[in-house]
Amino acid sequence: MSERFAFTLIKADGGARLGEIATPRGKIRTPAFMPVGTAATVKAVYTDQLKAAGADVVLANTYHLMLRPGAERIARLGGLHAFMRWDRPIGTDSGGFQVMSLAKLRKVTDEGVAFQSHIDGASHLLTPERAIEIQCLLGSDIQMQLDECVALPASREDIERAVDRSLAWAERCKRTFDGLASPGQALFGIVQGGTDARLRARSADELVAMDFPGYAVGGLAVGESQAAMLDTFELTTRRLPAHKPRYLMGVGTPLDMIEAVARGADMFDCVLPTRSGRHGQAFTWAGKVNLKNAGYAEDARPLDPTSSCPAARDYSRAYLHHLVKSQEYLAAMLLSWANVAFYQELMAAMRAAIAEGRFAAWVAQTKTRLGSMEPDP
Amino acid sequence: MSERFAFTLIKADGGARLGEIATPRGKIRTPAFMPVGTAATVKAVYTDQLKAAGADVVLANTYHLMLRPGAERIARLGGLHAFMRWDRPIGTDSGGFQVMSLAKLRKVTDEGVAFQSHIDGASHLLTPERAIEIQCLLGSDIQMQLDECVALPASREDIERAVDRSLAWAERCKRTFDGLASPGQALFGIVQGGTDARLRARSADELVAMDFPGYAVGGLAVGESQAAMLDTFELTTRRLPAHKPRYLMGVGTPLDMIEAVARGADMFDCVLPTRSGRHGQAFTWAGKVNLKNAGYAEDARPLDPTSSCPAARDYSRAYLHHLVKSQEYLAAMLLSWANVAFYQELMAAMRAAIAEGRFAAWVAQTKTRLGSMEPDP
Repeated sequence: MSERFAFTLIKADGGARLGEIATPRGKIRTPAFMPVGTAATVKAVYTDQLKAAGADVVLANTYHLMLRPGAERIARLGGLHAFMRWDRPIGTDSGGFQVMSLAKLRKVTDEGVAFQSHIDGASHLLTPERAIEIQCLLGSDIQMQLDECVALPASREDIERAVDRSLAWAERCKRTFDGLASPGQALFGIVQGGTDARLRARSADELVAMDFPGYAVGGLAVGESQAAMLDTFELTTRRLPAHKPRYLMGVGTPLDMIEAVARGADMFDCVLPTRSGRHGQAFTWAGKVNLKNAGYAEDARPLDPTSSCPAARDYSRAYLHHLVKSQEYLAAMLLSWANVAFYQELMAAMRAAIAEGRFAAWVAQTKTRLGSMEPDP
Repeated sequence: MSERFAFTLIKADGGARLGEIATPRGKIRTPAFMPVGTAATVKAVYTDQLKAAGADVVLANTYHLMLRPGAERIARLGGLHAFMRWDRPIGTDSGGFQVMSLAKLRKVTDEGVAFQSHIDGASHLLTPERAIEIQCLLGSDIQMQLDECVALPASREDIERAVDRSLAWAERCKRTFDGLASPGQALFGIVQGGTDARLRARSADELVAMDFPGYAVGGLAVGESQAAMLDTFELTTRRLPAHKPRYLMGVGTPLDMIEAVARGADMFDCVLPTRSGRHGQAFTWAGKVNLKNAGYAEDARPLDPTSSCPAARDYSRAYLHHLVKSQEYLAAMLLSWANVAFYQELMAAMRAAIAEGRFAAWVAQTKTRLGSMEPDP
């Protein structure tokens, strides 16, 4: 275990990067996918299952945890790791994105974001200082600055104002973090700027000048096309230092992640594997499988006989179909588990391909495999 | 593994009995609690967790499985054991009780029960012959005759008619079972008769004359007092042969089961541990714990530090409270698991006390422990 946060770039293969983040709570092999544990639990999945699947880190949501059970309460209970029984690294977002998507009566000013809880309507103010304070109370290993994220499409003025505000907040977050954080914890800056190349460049350059230990690329996958998302990500990463990890927030589908890794992404998070699992959909190496389809009612095959995940390997599609149709807990449990495991298998396969210098060939081959996806019903 | 169904009465201690049922799929230590896997899954619990908790047998519901996914479908998929990945014994009810409680437009005649599915309104006819055919298609190790169960209070005429009809159905079930069943499977007769001592006696005597390998006591815990339930059970068991297992259907609470074991019960099933788990309530040796209570919000103690079940031992009450309040899947998962494990611990403790000839003392001591239950909020 490292006593400090450090990123090692082990190998580059084209734009793709193999790396390792060292933290006091263990290492994170990159490219890494962080399963999302919104309310201190990756929905319907045990932490032991996450570990066995190969997850090195999970992402928790500051917005949800500040409202319930509360950051001070989690701190009194020994921090988020002890609370949710996960002793490996935890990343947290700043809360800003979810305030904008979930809270009521939100109002953004230079001071911060005032909003009402979607749970009980109580008024809250999330400032850059408070966002860091909360993440430190949680004990997050990889923290995010508070940023302002605008939904696309948006006017250039709106995007520019969000960029300026996010840069100012980055400085305030950094100052607070430097005073509060424990050794080995890291704060990432978040590049904003919509799909505007000049704004992205300015945001990246100014954040790089502040010398964060890692950079997130935010404000993407919020309504723009996949091509625009990837183009913007690529031109952003060109301005980021090679020796710092890059986290593409909120992405995504297997194909999104493959294309982003090809453009230099090191870290991802997304609710897709667990949300899809709760809706009867499985990710496999042969593409998506929608277990609601009546065609699986007597299909004795497992999702993937070669998987190391029992959920994918040991249960028939017919049984999974039955569980989904019957709205049984076990449907969400098995499919979320299988999907989280598939996402980890996908990351492991990318890491292996980069290590062996065959990432481009792997991408071509894998896109064909995953592209043979069963269409959604 | 035995090639046939056999019950061994190992020891009696007062009215309580220690025994073992041998089946081709493994032994069942009695007194035994059968977790209920209604729709081919014990809700929110993995079969590996059931095994680790010490469950020797689970109970599945014929009514639910005949409607979805269908008995013939399960048979084509290799039977219920393979379908739900449970290789130990499975018991099934006959479907009759749940038709009466769940189905629409049900009509009981001497032929059987006509009803409409609560899922899609489709018409079905469940006869004694079909009830056995379904249980054989499922591959059930311990099957139940179709019976007519009347809700209490009921008129003596209604109860007597149900007793007569159930006895006639017992003969038809036995005839069908003798033609269809596999070696080692067993069919139990079900004693009916409400709380009427004479009707219970007649029902028991006539079933005993038919020589079933085991006897269920049905039609209890359907509205009568605990005292009436226990009195009726006790007078019923007096007429049942000592060398056959006795199954008190649908019971119950820990205290119900303790009292019933004292009166000669060998087997139980109940949805209480899993249903309570889904509603935020845990069973422990110190009584019931309602995790919705705000008093647990910062309680760092686990449910039971001495439990062998990780759900009861390794998570704080504060975390469980948070999961329950947040309506997270993991709340139902952990509490159902903990409760199923507690029910198995309770059975193991009763078996140990009977083996050591100290059951009466154990009951007195345990009733005090469990009686110090936290009141429901």
